[in-house]
Amino acid sequence: MADDGGRGPRRAVVLLSGGVDSTTAMAVAAAEGFELYALTVDYGQRHRCELEAAGRVAGALGARRHLIVPLGLRSFGGSALTSDLEVPKDRTGDEGVPVTYVPARNTIFLSLALAWAEVLGARDIFIGANARDYSGYPDCRPGFLEAFERLANLATAAAASGSGGFRVRAPLIEMAKSDIIRTGLELGVDYGLTHSCYDPDPGGLACGRCDSCRFRLKGFREAGVEDPIPYAE
Amino acid sequence: MADDGGRGPRRAVVLLSGGVDSTTAMAVAAAEGFELYALTVDYGQRHRCELEAAGRVAGALGARRHLIVPLGLRSFGGSALTSDLEVPKDRTGDEGVPVTYVPARNTIFLSLALAWAEVLGARDIFIGANARDYSGYPDCRPGFLEAFERLANLATAAAASGSGGFRVRAPLIEMAKSDIIRTGLELGVDYGLTHSCYDPDPGGLACGRCDSCRFRLKGFREAGVEDPIPYAE
Repeated sequence: MADDGGRGPRRAVVLLSGGVDSTTAMAVAAAEGFELYALTVDYGQRHRCELEAAGRVAGALGARRHLIVPLGLRSFGGSALTSDLEVPKDRTGDEGVPVTYVPARNTIFLSLALAWAEVLGARDIFIGANARDYSGYPDCRPGFLEAFERLANLATAAAASGSGGFRVRAPLIEMAKSDIIRTGLELGVDYGLTHSCYDPDPGGLACGRCDSCRFRLKGFREAGVEDPIPYAE
Repeated sequence: MADDGGRGPRRAVVLLSGGVDSTTAMAVAAAEGFELYALTVDYGQRHRCELEAAGRVAGALGARRHLIVPLGLRSFGGSALTSDLEVPKDRTGDEGVPVTYVPARNTIFLSLALAWAEVLGARDIFIGANARDYSGYPDCRPGFLEAFERLANLATAAAASGSGGFRVRAPLIEMAKSDIIRTGLELGVDYGLTHSCYDPDPGGLACGRCDSCRFRLKGFREAGVEDPIPYAE
């Protein structure tokens, strides 16, 4: 499907955090026949197990390359994921944008994906953004992603020379978490490789109580499937 | 001018490379009364003297803070500024986008500035982008900057909560290099602190022959002022 005439498979850059959503988005890209270039940003997140999970997933899904790009976001502060602010537990979900919001994160991540895509000659950028069970983050909404796609087609030398046509692909954007999990399972994803918790214990076990764990557990429950990863409690 | 009622001076994030343009943009922001937060990205550029120049300029212009954010762009390749590709010399200027183009650089830089601005409560982001003597980079054009501003006002929690209103300020966008230099001199800028060369010698001396040196030298010549920095030849 993603074959480019005689020039071999088309390339896609996939933003891969190693969680359920980005892993599923990557599986969708793989199913469409893209040659996969996985991009993980090491932004000093406190949930470092993410980086290991991303490596496992990239390997399992046959990424041609997996880059982990270091980015010193900690110096900005302003988020529980990049500072010593406490990760909230057992939220009811209606308190607005939580402190785990990382300012402009998806803008930054998509910019980096765009840069690599331009170098690779890739035109498709996959992101596991999801506007439903999304914890209230503004940069997971369709309008934001469309605005980024417009920007991408103005920002690059490729676009300036007429060979643009960058597409921001968010195949999960309207799905419930349970649909995401069902989609991934149909595509053969092993969610035992993934990691979602914002605040794992020193051994890497998920807490089961942060927003990310709660959305994940609810998704598996609603999909009628057991979550294959262990939890601390 | 940039005073916010009784709440003290308004803050601006300034993208500062330590060259003529970003230094002048910062001087404009200072003249408007902003409290200055200078942001320099250490993206593995081969012209490392940039980082030192940025530090000198931030100090001279009274930045409240100067952050140097490390970002591993070298792993992407694709540019003479972040790889071992040779920096072209003595170009005539009509060969299209040169190999010194760093893919999506201004998109990445503006994303980082936006993230810091959101944390700081700043709404103005200054960038020394210039659409005239600009070496053919697509991400220095007004349409690109407008598209980024639209994106910024969709991307952030600040915007989502109604306290957005981010502005991308590119005060030099339509100026010739000579006008930029005249503007800076009127504002008291010491261009002896700045650094422009893409390919300085081991001692940090500017080559005088890369695009960046050539635009700089032409600008000083047309402004009728001597460039205060030394050159290798």
